[in-house]
Amino acid sequence: MNAEVLCIGTEILLGDIVNTNGAYLARQLATLGIDVYHQSVVGDNSQRLLDSLKLALSRADIVITTGGLGPTYDDVTKKAVADYFGLHLEPHEPSVRKIEAFYQRRGVPMTPNNLLQAQVPAGATVFFNEAGFAPGFAVEQGGKTVIMLPGPPNELYPMFEKQVAPFLEKYTGATIRSRTIHVFGMGESLVENTLRDLMTSSVNPTVAPYAKSGEVQVRVSAKAESADAAFALIDPTVERIRNMLGDVVYGVDVGSLQAAVVALLREKKLTVAVAESCTGGKVAAAITDIPGASDVFGCGVCAYSNDIKQKLLNVSAKTLADHGAVSAETAREMAAGVRALSGADIGISITGIAGPGGGSAEKPVGLVWFGVNCAAFQETSKQLFSRGHKDERGMIRNLATLYALDLIRRASLRL
Amino acid sequence: MNAEVLCIGTEILLGDIVNTNGAYLARQLATLGIDVYHQSVVGDNSQRLLDSLKLALSRADIVITTGGLGPTYDDVTKKAVADYFGLHLEPHEPSVRKIEAFYQRRGVPMTPNNLLQAQVPAGATVFFNEAGFAPGFAVEQGGKTVIMLPGPPNELYPMFEKQVAPFLEKYTGATIRSRTIHVFGMGESLVENTLRDLMTSSVNPTVAPYAKSGEVQVRVSAKAESADAAFALIDPTVERIRNMLGDVVYGVDVGSLQAAVVALLREKKLTVAVAESCTGGKVAAAITDIPGASDVFGCGVCAYSNDIKQKLLNVSAKTLADHGAVSAETAREMAAGVRALSGADIGISITGIAGPGGGSAEKPVGLVWFGVNCAAFQETSKQLFSRGHKDERGMIRNLATLYALDLIRRASLRL
Repeated sequence: MNAEVLCIGTEILLGDIVNTNGAYLARQLATLGIDVYHQSVVGDNSQRLLDSLKLALSRADIVITTGGLGPTYDDVTKKAVADYFGLHLEPHEPSVRKIEAFYQRRGVPMTPNNLLQAQVPAGATVFFNEAGFAPGFAVEQGGKTVIMLPGPPNELYPMFEKQVAPFLEKYTGATIRSRTIHVFGMGESLVENTLRDLMTSSVNPTVAPYAKSGEVQVRVSAKAESADAAFALIDPTVERIRNMLGDVVYGVDVGSLQAAVVALLREKKLTVAVAESCTGGKVAAAITDIPGASDVFGCGVCAYSNDIKQKLLNVSAKTLADHGAVSAETAREMAAGVRALSGADIGISITGIAGPGGGSAEKPVGLVWFGVNCAAFQETSKQLFSRGHKDERGMIRNLATLYALDLIRRASLRL
Repeated sequence: MNAEVLCIGTEILLGDIVNTNGAYLARQLATLGIDVYHQSVVGDNSQRLLDSLKLALSRADIVITTGGLGPTYDDVTKKAVADYFGLHLEPHEPSVRKIEAFYQRRGVPMTPNNLLQAQVPAGATVFFNEAGFAPGFAVEQGGKTVIMLPGPPNELYPMFEKQVAPFLEKYTGATIRSRTIHVFGMGESLVENTLRDLMTSSVNPTVAPYAKSGEVQVRVSAKAESADAAFALIDPTVERIRNMLGDVVYGVDVGSLQAAVVALLREKKLTVAVAESCTGGKVAAAITDIPGASDVFGCGVCAYSNDIKQKLLNVSAKTLADHGAVSAETAREMAAGVRALSGADIGISITGIAGPGGGSAEKPVGLVWFGVNCAAFQETSKQLFSRGHKDERGMIRNLATLYALDLIRRASLRL
């Protein structure tokens, strides 16, 4: 069973937007056990679209398109596909009602072309669009299936996960489910080495690690007759991997490190305050990305200058003169200072050299000192983040932000 | 003259990484006046790669591939392409020397397979890889050209801009250059309406606006015999557009709003301090993304709780009780407070309701108050950021961050 992804849209073709839908669908299909050998992008041009569709149908069992379903595109894409299959378009009543209700509520007259986006090929399986207006649909003919889905990710993602994935499960002959184990602080190759025996011996569930923006994710996937049966296969392996990897695992299916940190602080009824130098507000910004962060976070200080480090965080002039702003001593005083200032349970500090300037042989670009201050303990640690990346400054700041979030997690676990 | 982009890599095909190279190359080719009708992705499989390459060559004059040139892929991709053209591979001496020097410097023995990535088809035009080891190259045969480039963006971008773009200019028969005018605070449709006559009457240079993550960019492109001649055509039109759009233009070819803000502050020898509530550190993080931001920025306070607003920023308890944290009065006191605390020339504050919770009929989710405090003036303003986006919270925080950066710019211009 294999599928191709065909993304329709001149904006993608011209590079004005990056094709995240292609990556999203490929990942989803992999999870469902459907192979993908080709992805293509084509503009809003009916002839080239049809040519690409025919080619994809010659190579794959299932072709999934995204884009080209909005009110301005109707004549270009949907009709071309319906014609190709010899089907006429007819209105999808629930979608018609949604569009009419929208205009009624707004009190704006609706022009008839707005209803064009509610049209679907006769006999198609229709996927209602919860987040937008244009429904998606699947057409099956001669052993081949074409699935057309809307382009905006906020419409595509819920439609795929709630409606298209269950629809596709009939092709895979089984239900496939997976869990993602999130790992921070252990490199991909060490994770692989640790799990190698398990990975090679596991058939159902399968175990696959991959690196992703500073962390490693381990995906455990199983095929079974039902979701419950799949998770029954998955969960013991997840437990086993947690035990093998230890405390570098920060969560399972938790979305992001900051989401896990905020959830953990809330669970433990703890608060954190952050004193940032080289990360310049990124740690505070990451924490406050999470809705309800105010339960666990009230205060961040971006002390970019030495003057502010002294004035707000009570770092002593002597410490700065003797050891410099990037030092264990300054990190320690910053963490103590922000905890005293805020009254939080945990104070965290970050001070380093993000570059490109400011480095020396003794303190190179990428050196970052961290401080943790709680009633029970205080600690400092350093990291050298340097990978020869083009945007070295951005990379150092991102990695230092993740490391600081992980320090908050580790401190919380001890309190 | 048209080209196709073929991205090679199982990681892209499976969706483990998003295909940003496709968008990058499409944009670069558009700038060069080369049409792109198809983009494709194929895995590290020589047969499917060759099939895709043949198909692309049947549709386009130029095929540009990315990926598949590293040491582990040599046998899969480069050799397949060389065989197809009936060419043998030979070492590219400057690349061989770069690899050998690297291993010598590291004092690590080099296995011979490392030199495989320095191989190129005989007779190819070679593009030296400044940021990595595997060179790119172009092979021309029978009126068709295949250009193979490395996959990592930090290797691809400089190679394309410094070597491949000049190489391609011989196909376009002219030099094409462009400038990008950055606009914040005017919607795409109003920009289009304002520039409509100019857009329709301009042939060389062309004028094209497009919306991009909260701002609008207007690209002015010209074709001429040389870069100087192209810019001579472009620059008067850029001046004219600046005059037509007024102070919503924050720069030309400046990269980002935060880069423009930092450059402007430096030029005017001004400093800024930021007091953030709903943006939670994002404004400080944006400013400190720019190398050398410490010249103009020393202090950010993320006052997420009312307690910290009072304690650090000197917002009065009465103001918070009478007007609430999201109000003109609180914004005014936060901006004054952070300026007093930091001694900066400009104090900026942001306080709003990012959601999803916390909204009311009077103060809905998306309402954000801003304060500006300088010696010469103080002002507050509000915005309602609400677009029905799926990640409404993230969108509100992003737009509020951009708006605050623009307030810093506008304040600086008055000082």
